[in-house]
Amino acid sequence: MEFLLQLLVTMTVLFLLARLGAKLVSHFGLPGLIGEIIIGVVIANIAIGDWSLMGFLGLELPEPGEEIVESSDIYPVVYAFSELGVIFLLFTVGLETKVSDLLGSGKTALVAAILGVILPFVAGMAVVIATGGDMNNALFLAAAMVATSVGITARIIKDMYLMDTREARIIIAAAVIDDVLGMIVLAIVKGIVDSGSVSIVGVASVTLQAVLFVFAVILACKYVVPRIYDYFEDRKSKAKSSGKVPGSTNKLILAVIVCLAMAAFAEFIGLAAIIGAFLAGMLFAEHAWEWELEPKIESITSFMISFFFINVGLQVNISSLTDMSVVVIAVVVICLALVTKFIGCGYGAKLVDRNIDKSGVHIIGVGMMPRGEVGIIIASIGLASTAMSEELYAVVVLMSVATTIIAPPILSKLFRKKYAEEYKILDEDLI
Amino acid sequence: MEFLLQLLVTMTVLFLLARLGAKLVSHFGLPGLIGEIIIGVVIANIAIGDWSLMGFLGLELPEPGEEIVESSDIYPVVYAFSELGVIFLLFTVGLETKVSDLLGSGKTALVAAILGVILPFVAGMAVVIATGGDMNNALFLAAAMVATSVGITARIIKDMYLMDTREARIIIAAAVIDDVLGMIVLAIVKGIVDSGSVSIVGVASVTLQAVLFVFAVILACKYVVPRIYDYFEDRKSKAKSSGKVPGSTNKLILAVIVCLAMAAFAEFIGLAAIIGAFLAGMLFAEHAWEWELEPKIESITSFMISFFFINVGLQVNISSLTDMSVVVIAVVVICLALVTKFIGCGYGAKLVDRNIDKSGVHIIGVGMMPRGEVGIIIASIGLASTAMSEELYAVVVLMSVATTIIAPPILSKLFRKKYAEEYKILDEDLI
Repeated sequence: MEFLLQLLVTMTVLFLLARLGAKLVSHFGLPGLIGEIIIGVVIANIAIGDWSLMGFLGLELPEPGEEIVESSDIYPVVYAFSELGVIFLLFTVGLETKVSDLLGSGKTALVAAILGVILPFVAGMAVVIATGGDMNNALFLAAAMVATSVGITARIIKDMYLMDTREARIIIAAAVIDDVLGMIVLAIVKGIVDSGSVSIVGVASVTLQAVLFVFAVILACKYVVPRIYDYFEDRKSKAKSSGKVPGSTNKLILAVIVCLAMAAFAEFIGLAAIIGAFLAGMLFAEHAWEWELEPKIESITSFMISFFFINVGLQVNISSLTDMSVVVIAVVVICLALVTKFIGCGYGAKLVDRNIDKSGVHIIGVGMMPRGEVGIIIASIGLASTAMSEELYAVVVLMSVATTIIAPPILSKLFRKKYAEEYKILDEDLI
Repeated sequence: MEFLLQLLVTMTVLFLLARLGAKLVSHFGLPGLIGEIIIGVVIANIAIGDWSLMGFLGLELPEPGEEIVESSDIYPVVYAFSELGVIFLLFTVGLETKVSDLLGSGKTALVAAILGVILPFVAGMAVVIATGGDMNNALFLAAAMVATSVGITARIIKDMYLMDTREARIIIAAAVIDDVLGMIVLAIVKGIVDSGSVSIVGVASVTLQAVLFVFAVILACKYVVPRIYDYFEDRKSKAKSSGKVPGSTNKLILAVIVCLAMAAFAEFIGLAAIIGAFLAGMLFAEHAWEWELEPKIESITSFMISFFFINVGLQVNISSLTDMSVVVIAVVVICLALVTKFIGCGYGAKLVDRNIDKSGVHIIGVGMMPRGEVGIIIASIGLASTAMSEELYAVVVLMSVATTIIAPPILSKLFRKKYAEEYKILDEDLI
């Protein structure tokens, strides 16, 4: 099929199926993103003889370790949309995170994040070593189990309009710290696997970069942004007095440029792109409402984010699950992934803040469970460097998808129970 | 560079340069899109030794006739954004075109469009035959000179908030008819070149499809859409009385799905995708305001449309202009392209509607001049089927770009002059 026609057909089918999937699961009280992931799994596994739906949609994935551009026709475009979607999603989460608020729930989130990194890492190492795997596999599985995918939890919280609850703030802050810690763990693991020894300089450099980046943004929020804002307000009032009407599209483009630039910078220095996007959002947080940034960015996000969840589903190849020992290891890893985050983050938060009640512990513990794309990304780095076996890669993908599917409905029930009275708005949509 | 990093770097650089380009030309009173096209030309031609900016940005274009996917890294993504951008732009133009209004300016637009097709076609044939070219080249140049790129004119009109003027309505309606006629001409030319004779069945079939498509949408606007709308209103009032809040994101997704599906359908039956998008917009036109569709689609459009104009600029390879005879033919073709549309459309409109004054004739004539991407697309089809020479392809690209660059500033001056009093809003933006 010609590229443009293929693009339009693929886009139409994906949007339509994503909408249907989201609608379908909403009848069971599940958030739409689970429907989108399931749609991805279904698309990836529908095939009759030589014909496959993936092939029809021009979505054949790259082989593990292969470059994205080596995949077929439309997949690089879908991948680009999915990455930009999650980047803009984290940007909108950042828009709702004011520096003052973040620092407020800082210590609790920090301890929750650190315990939520140590426990899964130790558990991951233990599983591989207990089943006779080598050190490289153990390190990469451990690193993949560390990462929290804040995107998925953030969407649930946003869909339920619960951004203002204490639990939500702790989860988001802890997940962001977690992402930074996860990247540091990845850097350490890569360093050990690549060189055969722990590189102190490498570890220190990644840690320093991440801390400096976050610190610079916090300083900018306090001292630089207010001045820039005053400058624009000044221009605006001058323009108004001379009868001009300022364009609001420009602020959107400015926000998009800053978001992309900081995501690119984060990716460039070896952190995840989404960390840069989140921090960029924080820069605009104080004035997002006045600039009407949120509804505009949200239109773009809602256009692209479905591709992210479909893409998570596309990674699952059901036919690879014929080896029973792989299935057993997968089940063990999934259970450990759930339990270690639950205890590490939930009770980690309670260690610091005694005021968090039992339901709060549960919400934080479950909210930190989804590994989403971060685990898969780490596993694919391991696979590309041939440090990780194909079977363990499949296990990590399953673990990432399972934690991503299991946590949201529990989280949404816990939230609904705790905030039953304040919570009047249904997350079920009407069309 | 790794795909994701390359994507983010390219996106950031393109957005930033597009913004700078738009800002720069606005000081000369030119619309932003010209700045974006110039940025595209500059990007395409900056190279130091083996290093090129295009290469750095991962934007190496496919060879003429080659598939898009055979180009490098990021170009398929940029191409996808540019095509989706122009599709959503035409969708928003459709949103502002109510069926009743379109039928009102119908006859004038029809005559303007038909004369605006015949004159450039005859001129195109004449040039090639006069310079000793063969019939195939003559037919394809003629077809490329026929198409009007409504996207460019539409953006100027929208930027100047002049959608409600009579001239704007005639231009948009004529350009849409023109697109349909242009596609029919292309089908005829392809038929003649491929088979060596005029296929009556082929011509009749394309014509019938196009007319049926438009007719079906007009009927749907009159009889089907009001019922669907009433159904949704009914559900909404029921939902409200039971305390639910309907989601507005769903309407955006619904609109996007319909837009993409109709664009895909139009492309599939051999019309241009943008015709489908325009007609999809018309379906929603009556209720676009209530559903708040316009600001949401516009956020998506403003995010993507810069890529379209940059992409137009990227097609221009300045170093190919070393052969003087090619330059001379290019200049002649550009002049003819401008004059034939000006006379055909401007005075064609006046033939039907005597009330159009001299400034109205000029606005319509100039507004129909830009060939934009449509001419380039037709030429690339000719090149792919080896019916068109590489030199003539370069001429068509130049003609498309030149008409696209020359017409907008003149149009914007003519509009400004005519609507000086009503026209209080500056199109110059503030950031």
